[in-house]
Amino acid sequence: MSSMRRKEKEITEKAVLEEILLEKLVGRLGTSVNNNPYVVPMNFAYRAGKIYLHTHKDGKKVKNILANPRICFEVDDGKMIEAEEPCNFSWSYHSVIVHGNARIVTEPEEKLAALKIISDKYSFGKGERLTLKSIEKYESLWIIEINIDKMTGKKSPAS
Amino acid sequence: MSSMRRKEKEITEKAVLEEILLEKLVGRLGTSVNNNPYVVPMNFAYRAGKIYLHTHKDGKKVKNILANPRICFEVDDGKMIEAEEPCNFSWSYHSVIVHGNARIVTEPEEKLAALKIISDKYSFGKGERLTLKSIEKYESLWIIEINIDKMTGKKSPAS
Repeated sequence: MSSMRRKEKEITEKAVLEEILLEKLVGRLGTSVNNNPYVVPMNFAYRAGKIYLHTHKDGKKVKNILANPRICFEVDDGKMIEAEEPCNFSWSYHSVIVHGNARIVTEPEEKLAALKIISDKYSFGKGERLTLKSIEKYESLWIIEINIDKMTGKKSPAS
Repeated sequence: MSSMRRKEKEITEKAVLEEILLEKLVGRLGTSVNNNPYVVPMNFAYRAGKIYLHTHKDGKKVKNILANPRICFEVDDGKMIEAEEPCNFSWSYHSVIVHGNARIVTEPEEKLAALKIISDKYSFGKGERLTLKSIEKYESLWIIEINIDKMTGKKSPAS
């Protein structure tokens, strides 16, 4: 059940939310340790209810997720709509907010599968070229897998 | 002291960080309640060590901040740099990550001052047109004021 305040701006169709996750190239990962939030921009790929991110094994994101796997992942686009009156400018956008749990993937076969998904998105289908052998050199690269348990969307203006 | 892993990508000059905060039109606010992170895109304005956001008084952001004022605010731009090999694509960007405490502003004079700062940014200097009288109708609009206590920046590629 959504707690969104303005129902007319809510995106409820899962297919539309998935389309935004498939299309946008950057999202923001939110983690929290000791109730101290941390937000960082990341490239990502979505497939079948999961989000895949690649990161360096020694980064703060990995440390945070190992301490607390609860995450939020946010994706948006937006542009300003100008107005004559100072308080009347508005913002045209779509946004998706994902809640879920993150898991660190280090096992080679699973890492390869995730890297193929990410490479298919950012390298236009070249993911199939990757092999266990070809990714050996990316030892310090780990995968963050997000299992989505809730996803809400918002658009403005309301349609 | 920064804990950034790749020192060559760090932006250390405060003036450069401030320039990004002054220029970019959307940032992402991270809050956390019961160690459950929440990230949401927002328009914002920066002035003199503080960030100002406007929001509806009944929104989740306000509830979260009243429960835990610790926040993270992230601003970035970015574009992809294509590559021949599937794992070689890269991302050209600047990002600023702000840590601080947020405070909800409801008092009219203080709200007016913050709305002037926000309107100067998004309505090209029209903030001066606002008065206590003219903002009376925006009763349900509250201001979130972020007091920055740490700010880090990153750029890629390293220069």
